[in-house]
Amino acid sequence: MSEWQFIDWLRSKTGSLGNIGDPIVLGPGDDAGIVRLGPETIAAVDMLMDGVHFDLNKIEARLAGRKALAVNLSDLAAMGARPICALVSLALPESGGLAMGREIMEGILALAKEFDVRILGGDTNSWSGKAVISVTVLGQPLPNRAPLTRSGAKPGDWVLVTGSLGGSLGHGDKLGQGRHLTFIPRVQVATQLNLSFEITSMIDLSDGLATDASHIARESGLTIRLDQDHIPMSSDIPDGSPEERLKHAMTDGEDFELMFTAHPDIAREILISDAFEGVPVTHIGECRAGDPVVQWLDGTTVMAHGYQHRLD
Amino acid sequence: MSEWQFIDWLRSKTGSLGNIGDPIVLGPGDDAGIVRLGPETIAAVDMLMDGVHFDLNKIEARLAGRKALAVNLSDLAAMGARPICALVSLALPESGGLAMGREIMEGILALAKEFDVRILGGDTNSWSGKAVISVTVLGQPLPNRAPLTRSGAKPGDWVLVTGSLGGSLGHGDKLGQGRHLTFIPRVQVATQLNLSFEITSMIDLSDGLATDASHIARESGLTIRLDQDHIPMSSDIPDGSPEERLKHAMTDGEDFELMFTAHPDIAREILISDAFEGVPVTHIGECRAGDPVVQWLDGTTVMAHGYQHRLD
Repeated sequence: MSEWQFIDWLRSKTGSLGNIGDPIVLGPGDDAGIVRLGPETIAAVDMLMDGVHFDLNKIEARLAGRKALAVNLSDLAAMGARPICALVSLALPESGGLAMGREIMEGILALAKEFDVRILGGDTNSWSGKAVISVTVLGQPLPNRAPLTRSGAKPGDWVLVTGSLGGSLGHGDKLGQGRHLTFIPRVQVATQLNLSFEITSMIDLSDGLATDASHIARESGLTIRLDQDHIPMSSDIPDGSPEERLKHAMTDGEDFELMFTAHPDIAREILISDAFEGVPVTHIGECRAGDPVVQWLDGTTVMAHGYQHRLD
Repeated sequence: MSEWQFIDWLRSKTGSLGNIGDPIVLGPGDDAGIVRLGPETIAAVDMLMDGVHFDLNKIEARLAGRKALAVNLSDLAAMGARPICALVSLALPESGGLAMGREIMEGILALAKEFDVRILGGDTNSWSGKAVISVTVLGQPLPNRAPLTRSGAKPGDWVLVTGSLGGSLGHGDKLGQGRHLTFIPRVQVATQLNLSFEITSMIDLSDGLATDASHIARESGLTIRLDQDHIPMSSDIPDGSPEERLKHAMTDGEDFELMFTAHPDIAREILISDAFEGVPVTHIGECRAGDPVVQWLDGTTVMAHGYQHRLD
């Protein structure tokens, strides 16, 4: 099967165009895709590689594809934006690449359908290396709501987080097979938050709370203080001492939950709201004037050892 | 240097935001970028891998980065659209990845500056494999001009091509170091064509004229007949018989010239126009009702052996 036959298969899966209200003007198969977005286009890209972000010796390629789209939907969620469409570029191994490419795309397409996201275009290649998946997702602001950035937190704001943290990768026999492959991007929660409440900043937790909180601290120019007794601990964290378990929650990364800030009055409303369809929201800290660092309540520094690709 | 220090460096290179008329609302460093585009967003992605699309043992990483953006600008040119911004995802080797990543980005940034294209976002990773560069470019239609697709050619239209074809990869001692690394994306020519003439279809020549003409034939549902005596032959084609040289021009690929169609009256105007800043335009064939194939003037089939990534 050639690249174009692959594109034909993909076009057969991505549906017809031109339905009333369909934002996709031109889908895969031309030099570029065309989509109606506005008033602003919100775009994010993430590249996932076999052996780094997933291990195709241990998991189905479908799950790798799912994850590649999911991490991007999580980025759009963190902007309080609506994802509309995605472009997918693939490098596939020369041997077995076609079957793998179809499985990857099936994982992407299934999740895309759940979130009403369309495939706008792509590029498919084969090579002697391992599989690489790069997904770019495009979206637009929610009606009359500005996107939420990392830079809007104010001293006095409370810090909140969705879900529970740590152990996302899995452990023991299931190492690499944890919820980092199957998490639900928090698009709906983020939509509710941005539509119904004044959120001052938001980020998705990809590198671990310690590191991602430091991004908010830095971009907003303030100190974040976290309460170590209120960090929501995932049941995926392996047994260990309280200190070990806290470290998992703070630094394992790939939680893909939302951390966000809001004025205390707003935060209290959020904490008693039932708008989030069973997703828990926890008050974990506060913002204060000061250096752009992350501390515990007693003022000691939270060390950031979150997941980070070092470039040496 | 960490990923975030790399992002800091990138932000220092991508300039300040918020200038009047600047379409970039939010650049690299948040969960997503924000850009004002409209009325439609035109998006293309291409992934280039070390050892396939370039060889970092033989060329500077800067040229690989340049090519990764250039092929995407060529796609936007082929839509008759204006490129505005790009997202870049990188997989870099663990050893020496930082220096390589900077060189790649410098190549991208230099070409971006030439075309007034901004970097909207990205993702940088390291791994045990070779370098992979995926670039997504976003653009918008020219004022009051629809994008040009592959599907609008009409029977009777003439087929034209910019520049000259074949030998793009280089040969002999210079194999891999040819103009596929340094070509100028035909954005300005495409802009002139779409603004000043009624073009019915357009494609950029990435896989070779034989193959790319077949895309127009197929998407427009007609036969394309090419005149083998009028295919513009690049001086980069190695010595050989006329048949060998024609095969290079038809199938080498990576010419990144534009093939397009127009009514004969329009085509004649284009051929005598001096609007293309020295880029030659050649009349190479015509469209006629019939099966979606590419033929020579005598009706024999032009075999497509253009560059194509096979997925086995």
